[in-house]
Amino acid sequence: MQIGMIGLGRMGANMVQRLLRAGHRCVVYDINPEAVAALVEAGAVGAASMEDFVARLEKPRAAWLMLPAAITGQNVEKLAGLMEKGDTIIDGGNSYYRDAVDLAAKLQPAGLNFVDVGTSGGVWGLERGYCLMIGGPQEAVRRLDPVFATLAPGAEKGAKAPPDAGTAPFGYLHCGPSGAGHFVKMVHNGIEYGVMAAYAEGLNILKAANAGAVRREADAETTPLAEPQYYRFDIDLPAVTEVWRHGSVIGSWLLDLTAQALKDDPVLAGFSGHVSDSGEGRWTLKAAVDTGVPAPVLASALFDRFSSRGEAEFADKLLSAMRYAFGGHLEKPKAG
Amino acid sequence: MQIGMIGLGRMGANMVQRLLRAGHRCVVYDINPEAVAALVEAGAVGAASMEDFVARLEKPRAAWLMLPAAITGQNVEKLAGLMEKGDTIIDGGNSYYRDAVDLAAKLQPAGLNFVDVGTSGGVWGLERGYCLMIGGPQEAVRRLDPVFATLAPGAEKGAKAPPDAGTAPFGYLHCGPSGAGHFVKMVHNGIEYGVMAAYAEGLNILKAANAGAVRREADAETTPLAEPQYYRFDIDLPAVTEVWRHGSVIGSWLLDLTAQALKDDPVLAGFSGHVSDSGEGRWTLKAAVDTGVPAPVLASALFDRFSSRGEAEFADKLLSAMRYAFGGHLEKPKAG
Amino acid sequence: MQIGMIGLGRMGANMVQRLLRAGHRCVVYDINPEAVAALVEAGAVGAASMEDFVARLEKPRAAWLMLPAAITGQNVEKLAGLMEKGDTIIDGGNSYYRDAVDLAAKLQPAGLNFVDVGTSGGVWGLERGYCLMIGGPQEAVRRLDPVFATLAPGAEKGAKAPPDAGTAPFGYLHCGPSGAGHFVKMVHNGIEYGVMAAYAEGLNILKAANAGAVRREADAETTPLAEPQYYRFDIDLPAVTEVWRHGSVIGSWLLDLTAQALKDDPVLAGFSGHVSDSGEGRWTLKAAVDTGVPAPVLASALFDRFSSRGEAEFADKLLSAMRYAFGGHLEKPKAG
Amino acid sequence: MQIGMIGLGRMGANMVQRLLRAGHRCVVYDINPEAVAALVEAGAVGAASMEDFVARLEKPRAAWLMLPAAITGQNVEKLAGLMEKGDTIIDGGNSYYRDAVDLAAKLQPAGLNFVDVGTSGGVWGLERGYCLMIGGPQEAVRRLDPVFATLAPGAEKGAKAPPDAGTAPFGYLHCGPSGAGHFVKMVHNGIEYGVMAAYAEGLNILKAANAGAVRREADAETTPLAEPQYYRFDIDLPAVTEVWRHGSVIGSWLLDLTAQALKDDPVLAGFSGHVSDSGEGRWTLKAAVDTGVPAPVLASALFDRFSSRGEAEFADKLLSAMRYAFGGHLEKPKAG
Repeated sequence: MQIGMIGLGRMGANMVQRLLRAGHRCVVYDINPEAVAALVEAGAVGAASMEDFVARLEKPRAAWLMLPAAITGQNVEKLAGLMEKGDTIIDGGNSYYRDAVDLAAKLQPAGLNFVDVGTSGGVWGLERGYCLMIGGPQEAVRRLDPVFATLAPGAEKGAKAPPDAGTAPFGYLHCGPSGAGHFVKMVHNGIEYGVMAAYAEGLNILKAANAGAVRREADAETTPLAEPQYYRFDIDLPAVTEVWRHGSVIGSWLLDLTAQALKDDPVLAGFSGHVSDSGEGRWTLKAAVDTGVPAPVLASALFDRFSSRGEAEFADKLLSAMRYAFGGHLEKPKAG
Repeated sequence: MQIGMIGLGRMGANMVQRLLRAGHRCVVYDINPEAVAALVEAGAVGAASMEDFVARLEKPRAAWLMLPAAITGQNVEKLAGLMEKGDTIIDGGNSYYRDAVDLAAKLQPAGLNFVDVGTSGGVWGLERGYCLMIGGPQEAVRRLDPVFATLAPGAEKGAKAPPDAGTAPFGYLHCGPSGAGHFVKMVHNGIEYGVMAAYAEGLNILKAANAGAVRREADAETTPLAEPQYYRFDIDLPAVTEVWRHGSVIGSWLLDLTAQALKDDPVLAGFSGHVSDSGEGRWTLKAAVDTGVPAPVLASALFDRFSSRGEAEFADKLLSAMRYAFGGHLEKPKAG
Repeated sequence: MQIGMIGLGRMGANMVQRLLRAGHRCVVYDINPEAVAALVEAGAVGAASMEDFVARLEKPRAAWLMLPAAITGQNVEKLAGLMEKGDTIIDGGNSYYRDAVDLAAKLQPAGLNFVDVGTSGGVWGLERGYCLMIGGPQEAVRRLDPVFATLAPGAEKGAKAPPDAGTAPFGYLHCGPSGAGHFVKMVHNGIEYGVMAAYAEGLNILKAANAGAVRREADAETTPLAEPQYYRFDIDLPAVTEVWRHGSVIGSWLLDLTAQALKDDPVLAGFSGHVSDSGEGRWTLKAAVDTGVPAPVLASALFDRFSSRGEAEFADKLLSAMRYAFGGHLEKPKAG
Repeated sequence: MQIGMIGLGRMGANMVQRLLRAGHRCVVYDINPEAVAALVEAGAVGAASMEDFVARLEKPRAAWLMLPAAITGQNVEKLAGLMEKGDTIIDGGNSYYRDAVDLAAKLQPAGLNFVDVGTSGGVWGLERGYCLMIGGPQEAVRRLDPVFATLAPGAEKGAKAPPDAGTAPFGYLHCGPSGAGHFVKMVHNGIEYGVMAAYAEGLNILKAANAGAVRREADAETTPLAEPQYYRFDIDLPAVTEVWRHGSVIGSWLLDLTAQALKDDPVLAGFSGHVSDSGEGRWTLKAAVDTGVPAPVLASALFDRFSSRGEAEFADKLLSAMRYAFGGHLEKPKAG
């Protein structure tokens, strides 16, 4: 079927490629004309403006946005102003699900459908397919089924789904009304942060397994390592992450990627350790708070990212100031 | 090759089965004679006592123990008393790695080898193979290679390892001297707790996504749900965990099992939620503390298990007592 | 000066008492006529309706609301409809600071002032005085100074403030524009949750100091207590909390209350341990998330309260289900 | 009475001063002769060696050690070799309570008493008095009562203890057999870490209350601040911490110190934020783990200190490496 795509960054461009390969027809638009040109080369129809983009879509129109969360709302509203009753706007970005709830309500009087699609798969989606978590009106979602089926991994891996299993085994799922898709994707990413942190903390402990071989000085400010004889292991992290991929309980795709990253560079010299977070982890925590659900692991994972960017510094200065005030303790220099 | 196995519970018996199927010869012993008889049926040689067990092993002997951590030490020592220079004792249980360090040192004067094997794979290992994390003297470990290669998943899944990749791609790894195997397995399980908790917390939030559809009373003790219009989703958890298995970033074997468990029973009525922990999570935390490595996610995951068993109760009573003391706040009855 | 008070629950009634004792004139109103009558007895002027209440206030009117957060907004709006340019509405309840920001903006066109006063002190405030954190327009706040000075503890305790120290040493502070008072109070309570939890967790550990004297069974599901010889202390918690009040680093008012509560009942039999939370802890966490500030301690404290009310149950069932799926582990009955 | 003191650092020297002022006789020793000379000046009897020190003590001898945990054990053993049946060694340092249990057992055959005294009060103890948590044999502890009564704050503050209240209201407490004193002090410090972190996190959030006034760029890697209009407060932290000291629920001695520190320097420019930890916080966490008591707040507080010293760096690099692997996300530069 025909579909329009606005936002031709890494994610959007790859999705267009995957759709074109499967024979779908794509109209594409981006504020960067080079991004448009690259996909026209690949078989897409390019648009020079949002007006042009809308004009090139067949009715009922289906326009997919793949934009940063911060500018999605304004683009949806602009696009909506150019569309007609029965048309559908799809937001596949990492938007806040509440925006989807609000936008859907705003577009409904004009007869426009709003479909939110949480999209997981990253740069691997082009080849692996994307896991799609979909929210929106039944009929609009149903009409987009060929697009979802193409973007999702499908049954490629030989996974034969039972006849009544719905679309989930093919990698896409209609999760509920507008907002449900981004809600499920939000929690997906919240979980992702927790899973990533679990591996990272564990591997950091393995890296410290040789702490007993390093001499430490004894003073009132520093606890001597308890029983150094038990910390004299030099663990080969690339080999350990590799072996865990085979038959262990913690095998996962994130572990596959971690093993490869450590194989490429065991000390990860290319990274400084300032970890970004792109919204969903925060929103997941707010949802936990609103609904009274304990989420200490997901919270700890998020807060570590904040700390990695230096955001605990003032709090830590306060701790040092208190220690100095009650005990005269001076700070020690940062560990090498 | 020939190998002896002591401890024929779920794990030990399955490992013997896997070894027998591959043509290895197994001598088996357990305090429960029925467990011995069952494996004799399958082709193993049964022993009537530990002495008998040792007598039936060819030199240099290799005896594998698969026992609860609490009784492993005493059994290793008893067994060691019956063995000779050059023999090897393998502990494949969930033992504390420090016991391995200590036992190896204790056995060394008699010329006995101690090999610790962290074993992951659970009840699935019989078919999938076990992921093996091995510590011990080079020569003893090398001699056991055929056993490890059989117990591990191997290259069955078509994963072709590069010639210089070592054994990790086959699912077993010599991690270092005695204790290194259990150390790596300990951290593996610490990670496991964190990964499990990440999924569990996230799914608990998804389950609460309909909180806005439930009426709550307004009083000074209860915060009304902020903006209930954003919490009106009825999420199908079995379908969501299924879709995440296909192309998402958080695909994993634990997710596969979770999706299956929710398919079997979406409300998990068969479980009360008192979660056990079998040692490694605790030891991982202690290692983090000893070595000064932050592990907030792994700690939160462990503490939630303690809380699930009622161990926070006195602390919570204290909180209620304080609230009553400063604010006259009375407790409200437990939710649902 | 004259001031009106709406909401004569525990807090509101005590505040009126404290104001009356200092010679202020109070007009009081509550939907419960008995609450009004009780304060009329004490010297206040009672009102029969909100209209009557407004009519009895001298211009420029000052009306203080002390109501549950859930119904404060609607009462402010109703009251605003009855008031005139130059009048001031004060919200002293545990309201969300964002409501203060919004209400202030809403009232401004009519020339009404909105002042938000975070009020700490609980049932002890009547005698000790209340700590007041104030947000709102400079002039309106200045006009209310006699009321704040009376409600606050003042210099009663002999604390002589330096001439340029402002009002903070007297227990009240103008923190900024509308919303600033509730913002500071919100964070105050977030901190309160963390401090309370620190004491509660520590005392729970002290209570377990005799764990080594209790026999535990050894099986594969239960880790035996490491080195029971180190856990044979029977700690007298009432005495310990008392001794900490004298010269230790952790002396505090919350500790004073805790020591008294434990003296009254060392096992806290009157409490079941379902701990409420009244909003500020949640809002604090959301503010941390919004601003990217790590708050793992405050988050853990909040989540423990959720768990105390059974809200982790489904997550814990999931953990047990996963453990059963990969290891065949069955749950053990809940501890004691 | 007469008492010996070994270790004349900040704590030990102050304690001798406090004892001398109350008329006790003190024999003092330190490897640093200047420290000895300073106290001889103040009226103490100086010793030139440990042997000399022991010779100057009256029988039954009482020798108090105030040394770093790392060297306490060896000094106790050396001292014990010089003492006789009926003598008492007191360890007042921040030692591991397990060492006290072990040392007491070691000294018992020779008829020597071992008394462990957890000592809180820091540099303020000289004037305020020290809070003493005591473990050891009944008779030896009773004999030292005059020393404990002098070192503790006593009833100076007008707190009149009821006749049957024991010594706790005077600031010292016999908590149980050898080890109990350090156990209680250990948990005291664990709580201290949690309380400190609660204040620090809360104040860090207050500091960020103006986040909405700072412009941020919008891109796929950065979540825009949700609703900046709610984060436009410039909070005066010195004033807020001061006001909280008067009548609020979170008043405490640590808050008193924090308010003073912020008054002295609102931005704490003198501190870099690398927070030390001196053992007890770690041991508290291990005790929680051993006894199965959830302590997420105390753990989070400890781990933040580790992170403040850069110990999360490798874990954070792993997170960035994973993000790059699945999403092509590049790190952003560290926040200002």
